[in-house]
Amino acid sequence: MTPIIQLGIGGVGRALARQIVAVAPAIRRRYGIDLRYIAIADSRGIIAGDPTVSEEQVHQILAVKEAGHGLDSMTNAITDRHWIELLPATIAIVVDVTATSEHTAPLAAAVSAGHRVVLANKRPLCDEYDLFTALTERGATRYEATVGAGLPVIGVLQGLLDTGDEVLRIEAALSGTLGFLMSALEEGSSFAEAVWKAHALGYTEPDPRDDLSGADVARKALILARTCGIPVPADAVSAESLFPPQLATVSVAEFLQRLPEAEESVMERFAAARAAGNVLRYITCITPDNIEVGLRELPADHPLAGLRGPDNMISFTTRRYHDRPMVIRGPGAGVEVTATGVLSDIIATAREL
Amino acid sequence: MTPIIQLGIGGVGRALARQIVAVAPAIRRRYGIDLRYIAIADSRGIIAGDPTVSEEQVHQILAVKEAGHGLDSMTNAITDRHWIELLPATIAIVVDVTATSEHTAPLAAAVSAGHRVVLANKRPLCDEYDLFTALTERGATRYEATVGAGLPVIGVLQGLLDTGDEVLRIEAALSGTLGFLMSALEEGSSFAEAVWKAHALGYTEPDPRDDLSGADVARKALILARTCGIPVPADAVSAESLFPPQLATVSVAEFLQRLPEAEESVMERFAAARAAGNVLRYITCITPDNIEVGLRELPADHPLAGLRGPDNMISFTTRRYHDRPMVIRGPGAGVEVTATGVLSDIIATAREL
Repeated sequence: MTPIIQLGIGGVGRALARQIVAVAPAIRRRYGIDLRYIAIADSRGIIAGDPTVSEEQVHQILAVKEAGHGLDSMTNAITDRHWIELLPATIAIVVDVTATSEHTAPLAAAVSAGHRVVLANKRPLCDEYDLFTALTERGATRYEATVGAGLPVIGVLQGLLDTGDEVLRIEAALSGTLGFLMSALEEGSSFAEAVWKAHALGYTEPDPRDDLSGADVARKALILARTCGIPVPADAVSAESLFPPQLATVSVAEFLQRLPEAEESVMERFAAARAAGNVLRYITCITPDNIEVGLRELPADHPLAGLRGPDNMISFTTRRYHDRPMVIRGPGAGVEVTATGVLSDIIATAREL
Repeated sequence: MTPIIQLGIGGVGRALARQIVAVAPAIRRRYGIDLRYIAIADSRGIIAGDPTVSEEQVHQILAVKEAGHGLDSMTNAITDRHWIELLPATIAIVVDVTATSEHTAPLAAAVSAGHRVVLANKRPLCDEYDLFTALTERGATRYEATVGAGLPVIGVLQGLLDTGDEVLRIEAALSGTLGFLMSALEEGSSFAEAVWKAHALGYTEPDPRDDLSGADVARKALILARTCGIPVPADAVSAESLFPPQLATVSVAEFLQRLPEAEESVMERFAAARAAGNVLRYITCITPDNIEVGLRELPADHPLAGLRGPDNMISFTTRRYHDRPMVIRGPGAGVEVTATGVLSDIIATAREL
């Protein structure tokens, strides 16, 4: 059996648990792999198996979380021990689908003890560079879902590098929210109107500045660059923010109200691009020497110019894919497709154990 | 060490051997995997290692093949035994980069003896359905390079299926040659002119009917459908041919001369598509109930309509990627990128051993 400890049972975590329960019998038949939870943790408690968490217990955990409670509310919850103490003597897969930094050091400790890690959480890969290498050395950690959710990005990049290809340029649109906003501008909306609409429809984070700051895209850029072997320090990737500094610390309500203050600068860029026959996109561009994250004017025939709406798109120009790049495109967010990326990584890891 | 037997040392085979020699030290450092040839075979002889084929011997083999000779011309060549007799007691990876059917049954025998297989050769997967399942059961055979060369197609599809997603529709442009011809028509060329040009530039097979018959695309469609779990019999996928039956058996020279006889039917289809505001593409469409390979009119906003020139493009519409598909695009042929796909599969397999 392949023991799994899952950290986090929010939206992605619940989708993952449902997918694992659904496919476990088929995976057993197809690959002879027996995926079994030995523990599931949230920030307040751990449900540990005896020795494995039964399917019935998984459904109980899902019900408790969907009712808005913490796992500490369950009678058999562990609250006095850390998950790392539950790691078995055999090799386990630790899956981090939280959004916190708190597991970074324990995950590195688990790797150095010979365990394997699968991440949807970007934070552990965005800490000090030494922690990134500690987590990823010998391929101990997979993290496909951290960039583009279920789209094949990290695995493809590692495959190119492992086979001796050389990355010349990665160009990518990695924020569905910012893609949606750019398309709205092209359809005649003002920037503030577009943000209001995206916020009302739930396309943005509850605080839309989490999207508009570009910080999440910067984390993805950092992960891509480090995967390329570029030893980028933590916080060395700065993203262009789409709102002025005076709106950084006000309440969400006030921010939404004062959005027109962000309007002029974005709309000027948009108008200038359109006047030049170009399009405006919020993109990540990584070369061996440089990492840029921000609004860029692109010629109309650029691969990323064809992007509409909330899709992600990643273009790899390499020594082998030189004249014409390899391009991957599709929905890059959402709990189901993110869980798909995580589960693919779990299966790939389990096949190695 | 991970023992490799490579069948075929043509263009893709030589690119693969060069890539393996180049990356072996890095793969050893990165994953602790020691990729070693134990034998390399062409249709006339086998060079076997003692116990492994040295890097110097690999270079000798490359030189012999580049000079146009068979491996039987080398002093240490084996010509009286079959490669299957050279399989070791430990698990080996057998790599088929030939274009023949002759290895299909021995490859299935190797799999049933516990060995693993990596294919760039489509033929072994296009034989009887039982042979397909024998080769692929428990993931024993990887075959990423058979569709789209180095583009992530088969692995992505298997990842979707393994995680419980359901494929509703695969639409794909899988022939760079036919893509080139369609783009040429859009640029004002006639069909015969486009084929003559593609033939002169070496974009087609020596006999352009090998491309224009659609037979190679039909094989890729069969592999995709079978990977989806559809039990398609051998030869059950028929492709639309772009030349009339009376040109099927004439010489290549006569075929090229009489190409205008194929002109009318293609140009009529092209004109009709254009008049309706559509584009004409040679595509594969797979649903759970149907497999089609041929010329289709597509609306201008269809993902495959945006394709220009010789790129491949594959669009997966699934239960999870429903509103917007996952799309992969890029060069889908060429010895270097095909070898990349094969080597990625070899590394993934070696990590499991």
